[in-house]
Amino acid sequence: MLKRTHTCGELNASHIGQTVTLNGWVDGWRDLGGLTFIDLRDRYGVTQIVFEPDDSGLQARAQELRAEWVVGVQGIVAARLPGKENPKLTTGAIEVRATALDVFNQAKTPPFDIRGVAGEANEELRLKYRFLDLRRPEQQKVLILRHRLNQTLRRVMSQHGFLEIETPILGRSTPEGARDFLVPSRIHPGAFYALPQSPQLYKQLLMVAGYDRYFQIARCFRDEDLRANRQPEFTQLDVEMSFVEFEDVLDTIELLIVELAREFAGMDLSRPLPRLDYRDAMERYGVDRPDLRFGMELHDLADLAAHTEFQVFKQALDYGYRIRGLCAPGAARYSRKDLDGLTEFVKTLGAKGLVWLKVEETGLNGPAAKFLPESIQTQLRERFQARVGDLMLIVADAEATTHQCLAALRAKLGGDLKLYDPASFHFSWVVKFPLLAWDAEEGRFVAEHHPFTMPLPEDLPLLQTDPAKVRAQAYDLVINGEEAGGGTIRCHDPAIQARIFELLGLTPDQAEEKFGFLLSALRLGAPPHGGIALGLDRLVMLFAGLTSIRDCIAFPKTAKGADLMTGAPAPVEPRQLRDLRIKTLVDPV
Amino acid sequence: MLKRTHTCGELNASHIGQTVTLNGWVDGWRDLGGLTFIDLRDRYGVTQIVFEPDDSGLQARAQELRAEWVVGVQGIVAARLPGKENPKLTTGAIEVRATALDVFNQAKTPPFDIRGVAGEANEELRLKYRFLDLRRPEQQKVLILRHRLNQTLRRVMSQHGFLEIETPILGRSTPEGARDFLVPSRIHPGAFYALPQSPQLYKQLLMVAGYDRYFQIARCFRDEDLRANRQPEFTQLDVEMSFVEFEDVLDTIELLIVELAREFAGMDLSRPLPRLDYRDAMERYGVDRPDLRFGMELHDLADLAAHTEFQVFKQALDYGYRIRGLCAPGAARYSRKDLDGLTEFVKTLGAKGLVWLKVEETGLNGPAAKFLPESIQTQLRERFQARVGDLMLIVADAEATTHQCLAALRAKLGGDLKLYDPASFHFSWVVKFPLLAWDAEEGRFVAEHHPFTMPLPEDLPLLQTDPAKVRAQAYDLVINGEEAGGGTIRCHDPAIQARIFELLGLTPDQAEEKFGFLLSALRLGAPPHGGIALGLDRLVMLFAGLTSIRDCIAFPKTAKGADLMTGAPAPVEPRQLRDLRIKTLVDPV
Repeated sequence: MLKRTHTCGELNASHIGQTVTLNGWVDGWRDLGGLTFIDLRDRYGVTQIVFEPDDSGLQARAQELRAEWVVGVQGIVAARLPGKENPKLTTGAIEVRATALDVFNQAKTPPFDIRGVAGEANEELRLKYRFLDLRRPEQQKVLILRHRLNQTLRRVMSQHGFLEIETPILGRSTPEGARDFLVPSRIHPGAFYALPQSPQLYKQLLMVAGYDRYFQIARCFRDEDLRANRQPEFTQLDVEMSFVEFEDVLDTIELLIVELAREFAGMDLSRPLPRLDYRDAMERYGVDRPDLRFGMELHDLADLAAHTEFQVFKQALDYGYRIRGLCAPGAARYSRKDLDGLTEFVKTLGAKGLVWLKVEETGLNGPAAKFLPESIQTQLRERFQARVGDLMLIVADAEATTHQCLAALRAKLGGDLKLYDPASFHFSWVVKFPLLAWDAEEGRFVAEHHPFTMPLPEDLPLLQTDPAKVRAQAYDLVINGEEAGGGTIRCHDPAIQARIFELLGLTPDQAEEKFGFLLSALRLGAPPHGGIALGLDRLVMLFAGLTSIRDCIAFPKTAKGADLMTGAPAPVEPRQLRDLRIKTLVDPV
Repeated sequence: MLKRTHTCGELNASHIGQTVTLNGWVDGWRDLGGLTFIDLRDRYGVTQIVFEPDDSGLQARAQELRAEWVVGVQGIVAARLPGKENPKLTTGAIEVRATALDVFNQAKTPPFDIRGVAGEANEELRLKYRFLDLRRPEQQKVLILRHRLNQTLRRVMSQHGFLEIETPILGRSTPEGARDFLVPSRIHPGAFYALPQSPQLYKQLLMVAGYDRYFQIARCFRDEDLRANRQPEFTQLDVEMSFVEFEDVLDTIELLIVELAREFAGMDLSRPLPRLDYRDAMERYGVDRPDLRFGMELHDLADLAAHTEFQVFKQALDYGYRIRGLCAPGAARYSRKDLDGLTEFVKTLGAKGLVWLKVEETGLNGPAAKFLPESIQTQLRERFQARVGDLMLIVADAEATTHQCLAALRAKLGGDLKLYDPASFHFSWVVKFPLLAWDAEEGRFVAEHHPFTMPLPEDLPLLQTDPAKVRAQAYDLVINGEEAGGGTIRCHDPAIQARIFELLGLTPDQAEEKFGFLLSALRLGAPPHGGIALGLDRLVMLFAGLTSIRDCIAFPKTAKGADLMTGAPAPVEPRQLRDLRIKTLVDPV
């Protein structure tokens, strides 16, 4: 075996004259002027190999090589002919004049061209032959970035005294949260393990156990109907610390964020990071994870609307709806077709319509303009800080719909109007989320974050009187309008935890049955503690400038949870089910 | 909240006079000479707090504190009274004279004493209250060692150009190897994911995909009947590299072993590590993972036995059995009861009996001695290199039984006779294992390591003519008689791989059905590659000087696969099973 002395990304002018051996894949080949050229590729780069006419049959063997064959080549490093250098390659100054060739493995014609730009072949084919798609240098860069990100996370956490502790994958099903993946137990027929949605309870128990500062890059699982950018298994940086309050967790995590921003976004962040109260985020941006790379805040128009005869506004006021809008700078140039498109866009999000008003030299222009008195038009412009050439967009609907539509419009227009550099980053916290949300269907509260969250001290009395108003000691990290992570200060007081379980509709017996070990731990010396979890797949996506989570994972699953390469999930042998004492109620597909 | 300025392991004489705040658990308390002493404990150490008589009620509040209460204490660092220093504590020179106390949480009386020595409370109780057992400082040291070990592994692998790449937990069931844990799919009713027994196929595909050097600290799963030191989920350092041969993998992994030995065993290892061929290991020690901290090799006696009238030997020769033995230095002092114990010991391992011969001044002494002619006795002593005072032990049985019994005897006697320092370490390789083993029950070969292993080049022709004789390019790392890991050079040649599948009893269609994606990958440009997996739980156990794997895992399971703390596995809601379209065939326990 002709074993390599160098990688395919390593050789340069300083190696000229040396005899070297390279190993790799044939990336391309061509015959030119009696010579045979091979581009040899590995993870580190591409090197040009030249086979000259010879008596030994070496060039003839090289001419048989095809794309993706795996070979070893020995040769002498030489300068390329003047004008033939390739400055785009680190090895572009040299070529290797081959003296020996070893074919390690042939390759059949690949089902798609590795060198094609990403997405050129259809995604199903690429996922089926994932081991080929993973050969693309752009894809390799993503997994190398992921490796470096993992390294940085572990280095920084360790530097700050956190211990990485592994928690079980085979755990117990918990009644709160998303749907669990279950694992039938063979030794205990009729009983099941569950795969963890997060190591939440384990990390809290580690705090009770005195480990003080814990982290883990942990695999988590949710058996949910998958949306575009969700995977049934995903990875998070899981963190928990003891003897801390709200500010301490944010402070500590910011040390990590600063490192990440420096290394992966090329930014020098100043601390503390911007913080928005949940309520303010909703009022100003209509969403709890606003993209703060640009302004375009929402404005409230209810007071002005009350002074118009515009039917849309009058009805909205009657229903107790919100009337809110935003100003799109320079978008008065939008055509009627563009505006119909925006109206369609908010209708798919549930709004009944979209009011648009172009700000022109002559005044406001739009179907609603005629219903708006002159003074209201002026006040509108002032409130929107709208200048000639801008477009005002208004939604009058139930609060949730109004916010959802305006937030989506804002995100879309921010991009369409190029209000920010898409390669830039903005990091911020959104804090003080509601503790509970009322689930009308189930007739009980559900936890907004999870059931182990501590209320804000000043809201504790509301737990008895008005639980829906209780704010949590909760925080989300927001990057470029994406929720990159979230956490809370936990409830270390068994009495408060019991009250929360009660609000969640669990009787004391049910709480004991489901979370007995946690309640028991809280009664046996639990320190104040809190933590956070950051979504690693999403961090990779953001820092790699990608839009699909699938591109950030070595072996991802489709939106239907299938691994097209291995064929998982798949039917199993009847013997396996007999061993587990279970039966499927359908014929396998 | 009285938030800490220091940890409980940090203060010493240099801090005297400073006002500090500590947080932690009450480890002990006592009233003495009008003062109240509290030992405050956290992960970092223990500090003595003194409450003096006062008017503010502070001491009275301190007197209410009980074991495992969680508190914050503010006070002034002071020198301990002369003669009251505790040199065993890093903080033993000082105490903190309390000025303020904050009780964060009370604690009920723990079900067992945290300060008790390990194993004092019964293990079931300790596992049920694992969060308390984990508070024991000795236990905390183990998980801290595990954290450091993980760090070292990742640092060294990264330094050598390996990328950590995460592979799926939700995979596909494979027909070879141990029993899989299955995960029913809700989206694909009737189909199942399987939890990986190792990332074997994924790491090979990563090599085909050109990642060149991969590692992962990976969770693996086996649904086997658990033996004492097995867990249903375990962790391994998983490694794979491309463009390598046998020696290259061993070379690279030795770089890692040298680091581990230095950091965790305090040893300067010289490379290369000792290597034993499998066949030699079996002949010299009766086992493929000998403890090489001592000698006591096995000797073959068939030629000598042929010249005796001893019935046991004659029968053994008739049956084609092996007659082998070892010499236990200084063990001629063993009583008849001791020797009966050893005989019982080998009988439980399947031997029909044990021949013992004490070497005394007057000659050999033992029931068999009278059947052994003088010259044979002399030759026996010479072969065993036995001196007066030694004990010769002989087993005459089928080869597997003979080796199993003598290997177990050797391990036991090595410890009993103190032939080595139990705190010492010995690292070695055992190499060139058989590729296949004949499974008489199934009437086919099974893979000794796994089905993707490359035969030794010189044994390739035997794949056709005598498959049982084929040796594999396989290697095990052995530390102190424990298999710490193992690996192989993989089969990158689709034709050889197809022949191996055939020997394993898979028709080409079955091979394609089960491993189609691997075979397809081998045909699309697979480089020569190989790797290894090291058992992390076992490494922690060895380096921590422990004997139970359970002590090396934060939240372990019992031998029956149960988590006594959470109660997993447990029955689930009927709705969950309906969603999955499965039914259990038993009532839940």
